[in-house]
Amino acid sequence: MPRYKLTIEYDGTPYCGWQAQGDVPSVQEHLANAVKAFSGEDFIPRGAGRTDAGVHALGQVAHLDLTRDWEPEKVRDAMNAHLRPEPIVVLRCEAVGDDFDARFSATRRYYLYRIVNRRSPLALQKNRAWVVFRALDAQAMHEAAQLLVGRHDFSTFRAAECQANSPEKTLDAIEVTRAGDEIAIRTHARSFLHTQVRSMVGSLQRVGEGSWTAQDLKAALEARDRARCGPLAPPCGLYLSRVDY
Amino acid sequence: MPRYKLTIEYDGTPYCGWQAQGDVPSVQEHLANAVKAFSGEDFIPRGAGRTDAGVHALGQVAHLDLTRDWEPEKVRDAMNAHLRPEPIVVLRCEAVGDDFDARFSATRRYYLYRIVNRRSPLALQKNRAWVVFRALDAQAMHEAAQLLVGRHDFSTFRAAECQANSPEKTLDAIEVTRAGDEIAIRTHARSFLHTQVRSMVGSLQRVGEGSWTAQDLKAALEARDRARCGPLAPPCGLYLSRVDY
Repeated sequence: MPRYKLTIEYDGTPYCGWQAQGDVPSVQEHLANAVKAFSGEDFIPRGAGRTDAGVHALGQVAHLDLTRDWEPEKVRDAMNAHLRPEPIVVLRCEAVGDDFDARFSATRRYYLYRIVNRRSPLALQKNRAWVVFRALDAQAMHEAAQLLVGRHDFSTFRAAECQANSPEKTLDAIEVTRAGDEIAIRTHARSFLHTQVRSMVGSLQRVGEGSWTAQDLKAALEARDRARCGPLAPPCGLYLSRVDY
Repeated sequence: MPRYKLTIEYDGTPYCGWQAQGDVPSVQEHLANAVKAFSGEDFIPRGAGRTDAGVHALGQVAHLDLTRDWEPEKVRDAMNAHLRPEPIVVLRCEAVGDDFDARFSATRRYYLYRIVNRRSPLALQKNRAWVVFRALDAQAMHEAAQLLVGRHDFSTFRAAECQANSPEKTLDAIEVTRAGDEIAIRTHARSFLHTQVRSMVGSLQRVGEGSWTAQDLKAALEARDRARCGPLAPPCGLYLSRVDY
């Protein structure tokens, strides 16, 4: 049975998240409907990561099985035609072997978190970034963030409902950069715990505003205690930007 | 009477443009309503440029008179509070002399035009850029664009309804750059004719796709004939990015 790798971009604002959850509109459900519409088949695309409600993707990856052999470009264009007017698009479609699994074959996931640091609310970036009014020191955030790199028990930065077997993860890299009033936080790892990126960003924001030192962040990590986490950063600033295989 | 310089960002999608036009919602009208709401006064902010329906601003400038003396930050915050939930925000407010006129004192206007050049429709950039499916050669667009720099009769690139006294304008600079699938066209001049930027971009797109040579663009300019213009680029890709005084 032919298998396809789909690379997908979406605006997460109107959805309950990636995963189909019954009554509420999900990205996965809209994709499955588009598959059904062009091929008549009932296969559901399986994603590399379950993004939460309001979280965006610049490069989510999913695999899709179809009974019939299609030109990959046809799959992309047909799905995009049926996805309209939803803000979900298939950027690329490639034929892959049946051992390719979007979730289990992934070797690295990349996230981007965008903060706009200014006194005014957002107009053009509404639902696309987190606006923080208090001045943030991006350099201090970057330096503190380096304490999170490596293998740690990330219990402090893990949602209560996280289903991972272990709170231990290896964070490969995290970088905080500023360009004008925009602060970008880029991080990658083989995998993340549920809400780990938003939990880390919320805690780094405390460092940026000066209410936490880098040592406070380290102590929070070492406490392995959810209660020690900073406030959860809102979903609108988060983007699943890339998945490597 | 105290005068204020406002720097304004807006998403032009829901509006008939900058200028108040009776029944249809305009950026200027929402700003005037916010002024009325916080100060009780009936002054209308006067803008540096009249952006068309669907055109955005990263840095529109307007001047505003008020009878009472306010802290500029108070004006900014009060207007932003009353503008909600419209995608219009005051980025900065500064006290200026009464000889400052947002339109007539401007020495340079900067526009950005954003193209996303790919096979898939837009999701996250919907209404924020022009998606062009055919491959564009940004380098060829940049080189051809240099033929537009300098003082010319821009009749070819001027809307029929343009109210300027003369079609002669001096284009200071125009630059076309590509980063991944995004093409940015940046241009500045003391002033522009009505739809000049979108007319130039639509013609440059023809050069980018290879249906026009740079010489065709030059011949179109020299013809001083609106009928020789390429298709008008859509408003959603255009941003008034900055105004100098």
